[in-house]
Amino acid sequence: MKTLNIGMIGYGFMGRTHSNAYSNVNHFFDLQYQPVLKAICARNEERATAFANQWGYESVETDWRKLIERDDIDAIDICTPNNLHRDIAIAAAEAGKMILCEKPLARSVAEGEEMCQAIEKAGVPNTVWYNYRRVPAVTLAKQLVDEGRLGRVFHYRANFLQDWTISTDLPQGGEALWRLDVEAAGSGVTGDLLAHCIDTAIWINGPITSVTAMTETFVKERTHNLTGKVEKVGIDDACAFLARFANGSLAIFESTRYARGHKALYTFEINGEKASLAWDLHDLHRLQVFDHGDDSLIRGWHNVHVSDGDQPYMDKWWVPGLQIGYEHSFIHQVADFLKSLESGTPCGPTFRDAQATQIVCEAVLNSAKSGQWVNI
Amino acid sequence: MKTLNIGMIGYGFMGRTHSNAYSNVNHFFDLQYQPVLKAICARNEERATAFANQWGYESVETDWRKLIERDDIDAIDICTPNNLHRDIAIAAAEAGKMILCEKPLARSVAEGEEMCQAIEKAGVPNTVWYNYRRVPAVTLAKQLVDEGRLGRVFHYRANFLQDWTISTDLPQGGEALWRLDVEAAGSGVTGDLLAHCIDTAIWINGPITSVTAMTETFVKERTHNLTGKVEKVGIDDACAFLARFANGSLAIFESTRYARGHKALYTFEINGEKASLAWDLHDLHRLQVFDHGDDSLIRGWHNVHVSDGDQPYMDKWWVPGLQIGYEHSFIHQVADFLKSLESGTPCGPTFRDAQATQIVCEAVLNSAKSGQWVNI
Amino acid sequence: MKTLNIGMIGYGFMGRTHSNAYSNVNHFFDLQYQPVLKAICARNEERATAFANQWGYESVETDWRKLIERDDIDAIDICTPNNLHRDIAIAAAEAGKMILCEKPLARSVAEGEEMCQAIEKAGVPNTVWYNYRRVPAVTLAKQLVDEGRLGRVFHYRANFLQDWTISTDLPQGGEALWRLDVEAAGSGVTGDLLAHCIDTAIWINGPITSVTAMTETFVKERTHNLTGKVEKVGIDDACAFLARFANGSLAIFESTRYARGHKALYTFEINGEKASLAWDLHDLHRLQVFDHGDDSLIRGWHNVHVSDGDQPYMDKWWVPGLQIGYEHSFIHQVADFLKSLESGTPCGPTFRDAQATQIVCEAVLNSAKSGQWVNI
Amino acid sequence: MKTLNIGMIGYGFMGRTHSNAYSNVNHFFDLQYQPVLKAICARNEERATAFANQWGYESVETDWRKLIERDDIDAIDICTPNNLHRDIAIAAAEAGKMILCEKPLARSVAEGEEMCQAIEKAGVPNTVWYNYRRVPAVTLAKQLVDEGRLGRVFHYRANFLQDWTISTDLPQGGEALWRLDVEAAGSGVTGDLLAHCIDTAIWINGPITSVTAMTETFVKERTHNLTGKVEKVGIDDACAFLARFANGSLAIFESTRYARGHKALYTFEINGEKASLAWDLHDLHRLQVFDHGDDSLIRGWHNVHVSDGDQPYMDKWWVPGLQIGYEHSFIHQVADFLKSLESGTPCGPTFRDAQATQIVCEAVLNSAKSGQWVNI
Repeated sequence: MKTLNIGMIGYGFMGRTHSNAYSNVNHFFDLQYQPVLKAICARNEERATAFANQWGYESVETDWRKLIERDDIDAIDICTPNNLHRDIAIAAAEAGKMILCEKPLARSVAEGEEMCQAIEKAGVPNTVWYNYRRVPAVTLAKQLVDEGRLGRVFHYRANFLQDWTISTDLPQGGEALWRLDVEAAGSGVTGDLLAHCIDTAIWINGPITSVTAMTETFVKERTHNLTGKVEKVGIDDACAFLARFANGSLAIFESTRYARGHKALYTFEINGEKASLAWDLHDLHRLQVFDHGDDSLIRGWHNVHVSDGDQPYMDKWWVPGLQIGYEHSFIHQVADFLKSLESGTPCGPTFRDAQATQIVCEAVLNSAKSGQWVNI
Repeated sequence: MKTLNIGMIGYGFMGRTHSNAYSNVNHFFDLQYQPVLKAICARNEERATAFANQWGYESVETDWRKLIERDDIDAIDICTPNNLHRDIAIAAAEAGKMILCEKPLARSVAEGEEMCQAIEKAGVPNTVWYNYRRVPAVTLAKQLVDEGRLGRVFHYRANFLQDWTISTDLPQGGEALWRLDVEAAGSGVTGDLLAHCIDTAIWINGPITSVTAMTETFVKERTHNLTGKVEKVGIDDACAFLARFANGSLAIFESTRYARGHKALYTFEINGEKASLAWDLHDLHRLQVFDHGDDSLIRGWHNVHVSDGDQPYMDKWWVPGLQIGYEHSFIHQVADFLKSLESGTPCGPTFRDAQATQIVCEAVLNSAKSGQWVNI
Repeated sequence: MKTLNIGMIGYGFMGRTHSNAYSNVNHFFDLQYQPVLKAICARNEERATAFANQWGYESVETDWRKLIERDDIDAIDICTPNNLHRDIAIAAAEAGKMILCEKPLARSVAEGEEMCQAIEKAGVPNTVWYNYRRVPAVTLAKQLVDEGRLGRVFHYRANFLQDWTISTDLPQGGEALWRLDVEAAGSGVTGDLLAHCIDTAIWINGPITSVTAMTETFVKERTHNLTGKVEKVGIDDACAFLARFANGSLAIFESTRYARGHKALYTFEINGEKASLAWDLHDLHRLQVFDHGDDSLIRGWHNVHVSDGDQPYMDKWWVPGLQIGYEHSFIHQVADFLKSLESGTPCGPTFRDAQATQIVCEAVLNSAKSGQWVNI
Repeated sequence: MKTLNIGMIGYGFMGRTHSNAYSNVNHFFDLQYQPVLKAICARNEERATAFANQWGYESVETDWRKLIERDDIDAIDICTPNNLHRDIAIAAAEAGKMILCEKPLARSVAEGEEMCQAIEKAGVPNTVWYNYRRVPAVTLAKQLVDEGRLGRVFHYRANFLQDWTISTDLPQGGEALWRLDVEAAGSGVTGDLLAHCIDTAIWINGPITSVTAMTETFVKERTHNLTGKVEKVGIDDACAFLARFANGSLAIFESTRYARGHKALYTFEINGEKASLAWDLHDLHRLQVFDHGDDSLIRGWHNVHVSDGDQPYMDKWWVPGLQIGYEHSFIHQVADFLKSLESGTPCGPTFRDAQATQIVCEAVLNSAKSGQWVNI
């Protein structure tokens, strides 16, 4: 068994999901590599130490540059706010470290491009945590499309709906709320939520060629946690866009944090000539499948409980009917990343794959500003 | 076009559903017969007249014996409380009238047997309004079973759950509430609700051979509308039973008016070697179908919207996706009854078919009293 | 009881739904007016006569101008293809007839405006059959919004998805397929399906102020039934648009006849500060309601079975739990139209209301051509 | 941090779920104890060693008696087939070890009673892995009932439906299929599946006082893996029973491995005067709640996505909307067991709690044989 020494930067929500993935992957997957939780890095040493104790990290760093310099670190995992992705990734690449970077890749296409070039120049293994690709039902959707079961695709539609920022009392910025701070996040729902929808869409349905978009900031000012002052809100609270894919299909995408009743409802549906598929994150182990080839008397959407051994990843877990959850998508990505080290083939989405999503996100934001269709 | 002159006895809930069926059937079905609303009969002349005006009945009677004597009446429709079914049906049969009788057939097996013999002696066309057989999704279920798509049947389960009698303030007896009066109704949920479940079950899955049951009366006393006094409640508020069918399958049945949250939830499910089916009345145009022959990757319950032209009765209505409702099951029964007059074949469920259900109901009530399994 | 003599033009799908509504309305609603099926008008006399026999129309006309001239006709019901709406409506208005016109009002804003002016000049009662307003669950949605239960509205989204034109073998034009013929229909899914979505949206959520749209014609050529030749398809097979409402909410709308698996799936959802609502036509008696005011432990979407007596229109029908269907929305519209004659207040949607939808439809089609946002 | 040295006996399906629980519990729960995977014990040394490597067990034993003798083991976890539960548990209790025993407690009431007495005499902490109590939605159901939100309870119904033994080609006995071998398992679905339903029911709804049952063995003979011969099948393939609870409510229970289309569908529903609850294992993070106190216009079953921080256990996991899975119920039980060591209060279900379920199971099997109601 070879070890892969992980240096993790950040201990927030994503720091937990990744740490859990490293801790569990070898219990369920037969792999040549075993991740080792070598170091956690964050500016707040006390909290970083507490996190290290909880998860079993062997050491703590407070300066990410020092972490990157360490010889005993094989891979850097970037779980910081988006505004640090570029600098860390470029430094890590230059130091020859593998990189596992949280999504979105960057705050802008320009940042992303620098990162891609750095990593390509360094030739280091890399991946971006668009984890939903590896929810078994989503992976199955990809497989069904790739097998040609849908035939020509006519429509794609995706939503990512939340409701947690409706209150005007919610502040912006700082540790827990950097996603509301445009400086730290780069954008609002577009980079945070639509980026997931776009990554899945491109992966399953191919390139997007043009978009027209609208955005809105419903709450215009919020207290900023870092300054203590009421400041203008710079992010997009909601974003919707129309799109055309290279394969001729039409699409609608929408995301918001103002859809009362939806906690984290990522949905997509794809309509093909022969079949259709639909999925949603709130019941993530279900894939809805319509097969026009069914006997017409009993034709209807199949409500598929994706928990059988012949369905993606599910041979690693329990028995049919017993579902796994959100966190397992990260375990699957680590497993695939480790397997990619064995095989030498990249583990998608790579930085370059994630940059394709970045380009669409930026086109969407540009279109929202200009009111024009933007070609990609 | 031949006319079929209807003499309706009773103007309650069922009087309305039947009148609606007679009024609409020729708009949607191509038939040789056309029902004519010749007379409505009820003791309360004022209300009967109002009903006649609303529905277009040509005349009003206040004595059902007079109605039966009339030469211009071809068919008697019995919509009275259960305690009048026997006398009316026997008199109508003796007068050579066709009979359409509300369910349950009678208050007891003994009453039902007298009715069957009378009608068989008279040789008149007859049917009992177990209308749920003709909800398209239910009819489709029957068709799929008859085609052998389920293979050997292992399990049958059915519920009829309501919640409208939970309040202890609800009185019993009288016009609107005769279903709570054991003298008028014969029994509680067993005859009112389980009778539907049993009729469907026998129709689809064959004879029931043995049962063991329990019943309960949760509210022991209620004010009686006819006497104004608080009186003992004689009906069963809830009833559940285990059963075995002649085909070797096992079954559970349950009914209650104390299932908070269910207005009129009749459900059944049937599990076979090769396929399973499930249906519920609250979303009556849906049939859930599990086909084990499906490709295992996309195997799951088909959520079938029974609204296509190749599904039972649906070629008569609108276009795919547009549903019909509860009342249409009665229209379908009238259509089938009229067609049975053309063909000379009986229109099930006949009195004799309904008597099979009566026998099971009585066995269930007897078992609940004795605590023993009862063979049928 | 006053009579209202109906002259119906057209005997297709809508001719049936309207005839059914006139036939049944007085059985369920207490009204001062009773519609009388005085005359059916269509060019094909044989079929018109068959239709008259099936539904009980007293007479047949083959020239709609003659029908309009008849003194014994009070109201003209227009169920023709869209290209005849204008001429018939204007002539009927000039003749002082009431008008009940199928949707969409017209093929264009210009046609619609002429019709509105004619009817306003004539001062005759009028309504347009946007029937979905009167599905009880939809009416309930409107009521809940009007009561202020949602608070500030952030989002509206609506779809109308079908799959019946995917086959390239399907011809266009002629009696059953005029909806695929741009000359007869004016547009494709925009006027046929999105018009419903827009009517409901404006009714519930107020005016739309701007849109950006895309359309697509997936099958470019089809045999034309009238010419027998393969001809260019002029209609939009699919249309999606982004919109902003005057109340500040954002919206997405989509319609297509290429969404495999959806027969006639009209859906809408509205997200407010305090509550959200969702509905779909395939299970039309259900309204999904999210109430943020619920105790957080049991907060979740209420799956409301709209069949209780205190819910819109449902006191007229059966008992709780027993659903009505698609056709009843037309019965409700007739009931409301007849009541409007009693009260003298208009029965929405009037021609002028329907023209507001026409204006949005045309803006959508213009935007799809220009690629620009269009203000309304 | 105190350590709790675990000695695990058995490495099958349950060996994995428990090992996973011990490995993860301290990452998510703040506890004074930390389980240490000290030893795995199984007769097949090679497989036991492989399991130890996969999960990080420090040592391997092949004789459970030797494991129990070891001083460095604090707690024995029994994951063997049921026929070994008694001997191991009694020996472990006598050795003063804590015991965590897989369900069902034993093959019979007699075995279970011996075990209870041994453990009570020894006074050691103990628990039985009826894990479904700790699915957050199930725990929430218990909480809502305990808060009195349902009022008087009228009905309880539970099913556990599977379909994996329908094929007659499936053998019985041996490592993977001991559940089909009556000698190893004690009974079929009654002890394996209904035991879960009964444990939950008693926990939530109180004692069961009487039952009447039926069982069936659909496939009468199967090849035995240990003898290689076709042998009689001794287990119950299906079991259904009626029951009465001490609180006056009625119940139906059913379990089978012949319900085509259901992989592992454990469901329960409880109907009270004021509210009702329903849950199913296939979508385990959902609790359906009907609250009669809701405004009647929007009254309907709440579809509660149990993933918020104020719902049981969910403050330990991710963010609202992101679900956990089956395995987490075991993590929760370990957390509660470790907390019970801190507090000194027992961690239910204890052996004595599990014996109550054993008593009902045996009454059910006896009733099925005698055809009589059995009091408990």
